[in-house]
Amino acid sequence: MDELKKQNEKIWHSAAHVFAQALTQIYPTVKIAIGPPIETGFHYDFELEKTLKENNLIELEKKMLEIIKIKDDMIKKEITIEEAKKLFEKNEYKIEMINELEQSGEKKVSIYTNGNFIDLCKGPHVKNISEIGAIKLLKISSAYWKGNEKNKQLTRVYGIAFKTKEELNEWLEKKETSEKNDHNKIGREQNIFMTHELVGQGLPLLMPRGAKLFQILSRFVEDEEEKRGYVYTRTPYMAKADLYKISGHWEHYKDGMFIMGNQENEKELLALRPMTCPYQFLIYKNGLKSYKDLPIKFAETSVLFRNESSGEMHGLTRVRQFTLSEGHVIVTPGQLEEEFKSVISLINFVMESIGIKDDITYRFSKWDPKNEKGKYINNPTAWEHSQNEMKKILDHLKIDYEEVEDEAAFYGPKLDLQAKNVYGKEDTIITVQIDFALPERFEMTYIDNDGKKKTPYIIHRSSIGCYERTMAMLIEKYGGAFPTWLSPEQIIIIPVSDKFSNEAKKIHEELLENGIRSNLDNRNESLGYRIRDAQKIKAPYIGVIGAREIETKSIAIRNRNGEQETILVKDFISKIKKEVSEKK
Amino acid sequence: MDELKKQNEKIWHSAAHVFAQALTQIYPTVKIAIGPPIETGFHYDFELEKTLKENNLIELEKKMLEIIKIKDDMIKKEITIEEAKKLFEKNEYKIEMINELEQSGEKKVSIYTNGNFIDLCKGPHVKNISEIGAIKLLKISSAYWKGNEKNKQLTRVYGIAFKTKEELNEWLEKKETSEKNDHNKIGREQNIFMTHELVGQGLPLLMPRGAKLFQILSRFVEDEEEKRGYVYTRTPYMAKADLYKISGHWEHYKDGMFIMGNQENEKELLALRPMTCPYQFLIYKNGLKSYKDLPIKFAETSVLFRNESSGEMHGLTRVRQFTLSEGHVIVTPGQLEEEFKSVISLINFVMESIGIKDDITYRFSKWDPKNEKGKYINNPTAWEHSQNEMKKILDHLKIDYEEVEDEAAFYGPKLDLQAKNVYGKEDTIITVQIDFALPERFEMTYIDNDGKKKTPYIIHRSSIGCYERTMAMLIEKYGGAFPTWLSPEQIIIIPVSDKFSNEAKKIHEELLENGIRSNLDNRNESLGYRIRDAQKIKAPYIGVIGAREIETKSIAIRNRNGEQETILVKDFISKIKKEVSEKK
Repeated sequence: MDELKKQNEKIWHSAAHVFAQALTQIYPTVKIAIGPPIETGFHYDFELEKTLKENNLIELEKKMLEIIKIKDDMIKKEITIEEAKKLFEKNEYKIEMINELEQSGEKKVSIYTNGNFIDLCKGPHVKNISEIGAIKLLKISSAYWKGNEKNKQLTRVYGIAFKTKEELNEWLEKKETSEKNDHNKIGREQNIFMTHELVGQGLPLLMPRGAKLFQILSRFVEDEEEKRGYVYTRTPYMAKADLYKISGHWEHYKDGMFIMGNQENEKELLALRPMTCPYQFLIYKNGLKSYKDLPIKFAETSVLFRNESSGEMHGLTRVRQFTLSEGHVIVTPGQLEEEFKSVISLINFVMESIGIKDDITYRFSKWDPKNEKGKYINNPTAWEHSQNEMKKILDHLKIDYEEVEDEAAFYGPKLDLQAKNVYGKEDTIITVQIDFALPERFEMTYIDNDGKKKTPYIIHRSSIGCYERTMAMLIEKYGGAFPTWLSPEQIIIIPVSDKFSNEAKKIHEELLENGIRSNLDNRNESLGYRIRDAQKIKAPYIGVIGAREIETKSIAIRNRNGEQETILVKDFISKIKKEVSEKK
Repeated sequence: MDELKKQNEKIWHSAAHVFAQALTQIYPTVKIAIGPPIETGFHYDFELEKTLKENNLIELEKKMLEIIKIKDDMIKKEITIEEAKKLFEKNEYKIEMINELEQSGEKKVSIYTNGNFIDLCKGPHVKNISEIGAIKLLKISSAYWKGNEKNKQLTRVYGIAFKTKEELNEWLEKKETSEKNDHNKIGREQNIFMTHELVGQGLPLLMPRGAKLFQILSRFVEDEEEKRGYVYTRTPYMAKADLYKISGHWEHYKDGMFIMGNQENEKELLALRPMTCPYQFLIYKNGLKSYKDLPIKFAETSVLFRNESSGEMHGLTRVRQFTLSEGHVIVTPGQLEEEFKSVISLINFVMESIGIKDDITYRFSKWDPKNEKGKYINNPTAWEHSQNEMKKILDHLKIDYEEVEDEAAFYGPKLDLQAKNVYGKEDTIITVQIDFALPERFEMTYIDNDGKKKTPYIIHRSSIGCYERTMAMLIEKYGGAFPTWLSPEQIIIIPVSDKFSNEAKKIHEELLENGIRSNLDNRNESLGYRIRDAQKIKAPYIGVIGAREIETKSIAIRNRNGEQETILVKDFISKIKKEVSEKK
């Protein structure tokens, strides 16, 4: 896998050169700037007076294929800074890069030549450009030189290349499916969420269908957790800096926090919360606790804020405000393993219910003793202890995990539940942490059965993760065609015509009274138009009501596979109730 | 009523003089500063080396009664500034006040004399101090001179006085009841909410019982509104300043907003939201709207933020973060009256359900054309028009309202629903506004049936108001003994002893499965101890489980009036379901 990735990167890197070569052949006045391989494929940035269009890409592709056919070797050569400056004297971008290399102490730079085309480049590359078996230019975009908006805006072209045509076709097919299911596309098309430049990046607005999905999920989680002994809290979204100084967030996490007002001038420094922990700890501390009270399981449908830079924002997955099904289980040391187990059991139940359990892998995230950037609380003995304890529990519970260094929370090791998005990119959906550090910092105690004050342990946990991110996963998993129990609307009732509007409304209301999420579309539009509208949002059922249905107290339903049947209203109610109870 | 209030103020003002007179007689070295009548009663601030205790108040009261018995007249006299300075030369506080009066251009000041006691005072006072029929000193406190913490700290004594002993006793009785029911007392005692200095003022933490009450109320409101055709949104809690510039909040409301970071330095100026309006407007604007789509009714259980100064904070009623059942009904002009009516009908239903409908009065809040502080959008014609329209609708709906000037929202007139707290202080619980201004500012449109683009009207509305404030009202109304349907726990199940713990748990779980909020207290504590704990939080029912109950599948319940009965588990389930469905 890694070998293939390395091979592909060489191909992408070399394809970028061939692209630049083709570009200079077609547009001799172009100033090529920089063209690296990226996570998948490559891009090249350049200054060109002409605005490129789709058909120019076709022309460029053709030229690239001609160049590849010549089968030139990619030849590496080291030259002096002086030579390099001479060689690229007409290209201010290359000169700037050479100057920077010089300033950083380099005496020589490397160049790659294929045929008569030379580019400044570290490599590595394929040996011969004929190894590039297939290419495709994907997109015309723009970018500031060095990503800095004060610099000149350049044209950017994205491309992909593979050793064989088959690989390319396979990749393009997969890309098409992925893009079709990208939550950032479907979510907007299906009115689940939107963003707006007046609100800002990373701040999606959940539209009625998205807010309904959120409500369904959060009520499901809240009810399930309450059944399992959790009690809910509702704590404020901001606090004085003093609170975060105790929790360590101020020291380890301040850059990611939103701080109110001018930090130098404010009498009272308030900041939005990045986590709920300290708030629930204060509730724990309200009143003396005995070992008889433990375990205490606090949960909250908790809104959190992270001041990420706007370039990193994406749909519902990279956001600046999100809602976590957050909780803290406060236990005696003797209760730790059993409660950890019941946390895992809850998570598995939730993942199973929403249908993504099989997509999850486990990662045991440890600290990195060599990380010197202050990322972690500096207490090696505590880290060793807590990691060993956690490992023991994980092994005992026979959890099949991968161990990764330098991914822990700043206050302790984590078990991460990982899942991949439509593009195959892995993301953490849920984390469970065992915390031996914060209870002491917050002076949390309980009176043990020997009458002595002791410090409890804390399990930080989620059960469905961050709602926005999990919603994104669900959108992609189901391509917007949610299971009946999760679907914002379970049936769209459409009277054949105005004449049946009142009777259709009665059926709609009967469904509502039975807890079925029915929408009534009695707009003055054609039947076909309204059916197509209902199909667009992939409603599980469309129910058409005409004379015959009214007479027989039934609904002519069609499901998402196009299957149709006429069913008694009362049977439809039972059918939906069964699907919901079976989480289908 | 106003006459009585004026009379009482004279009595309070005069009693303050008598208090100061008694003070100087007992403590000749005292420097009296200032003693005004306040909303109820009076206080007097003074500099005294001795720290006053409760028993000193009794002594002072006795001395005041002796002075009153002398039946001196309160004689007003005007003297020159010079004379006043001479008269009060030993009292730096009075001298400072006289200097200020002089600087503000006064040539003379007024003094009041009763017997041998003279105080600087504008009055008015009773004619004869014998009109003070009864007095009570209430509290020893402290205050900075002129309320400025840079000044000297003075002793403050609060007192009350009436014409008759009966009035005083009545007032004291009422005060005791009020204080007992103050949500800020009960709410903390009953673990509904807490505050913490590390979090900050005006940022209450809802503890599990409070969070449960919030969940019950918000789910009730969400479900009821959805039944009535509202669709929910979930929009972000912050946005770029640009959004608030369009809505007018930046111009009219900026001081009350939390702004992130240093306003001068930030590339992107973000602020927490004071209202949800503009966010729901943007959702409306997503996609073309036709007259066939209207009315659109958006609702949100919406968290809002107001940067109030910390001195004004109180319990759950004066807070910096709160949750509004907010909504916007977007209508064609022709739909305005009917939709306004259905908003009022929804509000009445909600108020009736939670039991406070009879405590509500209506206020029609208008703008003040003379307010020049930029409080309102400056468009007199629009104001006249919208106020007339609203008045017409209110009159048409036969709503019994009081008209008040200068209480409108900055963008339009309001109907306010007013209620009094335990101390008789009136507060706005809910507002309904008709908005002709913002739809234009946000360029909201719909295509009318003549094919033309038109601007809709908007009804801004709530249905249960701000959850925190309404919860405070409910706590005070019920003294913490919530109706069964609202109570965070409906029954506390207590096994007589350890032996019955497992069987009690089964009954508890059967109740849970039937949707009854049952708590199981199987702590290893005595029966009496656990019953008293359950009584403290005023649970509607306490259910004791022993051998006989297990044998007969029943529960020995006792309600909050101490009435006991043994009831079959299944009958108890029906009983609670009936109470809940009847909102009892």
